[in-house]
Amino acid sequence: MGDSPAKAQSPVGLTYVVGASQVLGLAVITVTGVWMGQYRDGIAWESLKLQLNVHPLCMVIGMVFLQGDALLVYRVFRNESKLFARVLHGLLHALALVISLVGLIAVFKYHKKNHFPDMYSLHSWCGMLAFGGYFIQWLLGLCFFLFPGASLSFRSRYKPQHVFFGIFLLLLSIAAGLLGILELLLFKIRDQYSSFAPEGVLANVLGLLLVAFGAVMGYILTRDEWRRPPVAEELALSMDFKKLTEEESPASPN
Amino acid sequence: MGDSPAKAQSPVGLTYVVGASQVLGLAVITVTGVWMGQYRDGIAWESLKLQLNVHPLCMVIGMVFLQGDALLVYRVFRNESKLFARVLHGLLHALALVISLVGLIAVFKYHKKNHFPDMYSLHSWCGMLAFGGYFIQWLLGLCFFLFPGASLSFRSRYKPQHVFFGIFLLLLSIAAGLLGILELLLFKIRDQYSSFAPEGVLANVLGLLLVAFGAVMGYILTRDEWRRPPVAEELALSMDFKKLTEEESPASPN
Repeated sequence: MGDSPAKAQSPVGLTYVVGASQVLGLAVITVTGVWMGQYRDGIAWESLKLQLNVHPLCMVIGMVFLQGDALLVYRVFRNESKLFARVLHGLLHALALVISLVGLIAVFKYHKKNHFPDMYSLHSWCGMLAFGGYFIQWLLGLCFFLFPGASLSFRSRYKPQHVFFGIFLLLLSIAAGLLGILELLLFKIRDQYSSFAPEGVLANVLGLLLVAFGAVMGYILTRDEWRRPPVAEELALSMDFKKLTEEESPASPN
Repeated sequence: MGDSPAKAQSPVGLTYVVGASQVLGLAVITVTGVWMGQYRDGIAWESLKLQLNVHPLCMVIGMVFLQGDALLVYRVFRNESKLFARVLHGLLHALALVISLVGLIAVFKYHKKNHFPDMYSLHSWCGMLAFGGYFIQWLLGLCFFLFPGASLSFRSRYKPQHVFFGIFLLLLSIAAGLLGILELLLFKIRDQYSSFAPEGVLANVLGLLLVAFGAVMGYILTRDEWRRPPVAEELALSMDFKKLTEEESPASPN
């Protein structure tokens, strides 16, 4: 794959911005862990109170960091085969879905043990919309892009919708995360929050990190010039062949 | 301008989706008004309690509906001169900024009258970041696109950043709106919220309407095929001329 004549170096700007996205994503996970460890007594599965703390940690790992990184696969693996990128994209999303499901089970079990009602808050509505939409989007992607059944013309019409909804679901997940932060703060430290308690400031900073992660991801994914260039095998073989030759002269495959 | 040879009908899909965005935007304003009127005793400026209710109404009109509509100007006014579109875009944003400023003054005055602290919550941090960023973005747009000082090459390099940050600021404003909804609910009806009180359900529906408005706006603004076509005067005169001729054959200006 590396010997493709269409091999292209990653644009320098892309490398730095992807690096920034990874720093921000890991910072989101770290600060969530510090918050749960330092101010919420840590996490534990078999616990009346601490099972709740599994939820934010799983959700930022699954619905934010891994979901985001899965979207970057086509930008980062620029010279590998499209099949490799597709499989990695699908696997990262599958891992994100499993980890998020663990996070969801944690909060439902915590609610049940404590006799709290489910699914009444705006956080839960947005979060469940994001998770449900994410699962449906993953199934559609699997059916239409990895299994060979879908026609090429259907694939090329569905692809822009898939890309749009992928970015939408990441941003909705981030919005649900912001709502979750505020909900945790207003339920537990409402009165200290308004006097700038350290926990509140830390959680607000986590919110800003989430916003920054979403902004950087959105920037990477909407730069036309950072799109994956076509590799030789695609020019010769892939389903994109017709579309590519319509857009570019065959004499200039780069 | 209507007699431009590059005159193009609005794509049918665009017309319907813009229509849907307007229905959603007006629904956001209406539901916010109903919420404040039905469950929060209405709005009033000179009031110890009701001045707070001016805030959400002004913010959804300014930072959501008008900010969003200003972004649509280049999609909707496809055959008018670029200068007309630019001036309308800038004026709608200016109106949005003024209405949002009134909403901000309302909440700061309400806090002051009631001796509540300012700027401690994640809603306030995200909202102020959105408003501050929006004001700076408006000033930069005014300097670089309406005043004649900026060089053409600088303009063409700045434009993609301006477009990206415009969409980012709209989505950040919507996220701040979602946080504001949750904050109002958890401060006032925390215990009834979990038993699906009508006010909570109405406010959650408002949150979903905001999400839908953001999704539809994002969809319209990221469809390549719905971008404003170049009009004749641009092909002959504008700063975009060089870029356009690089992208398209001069023989096919449509």
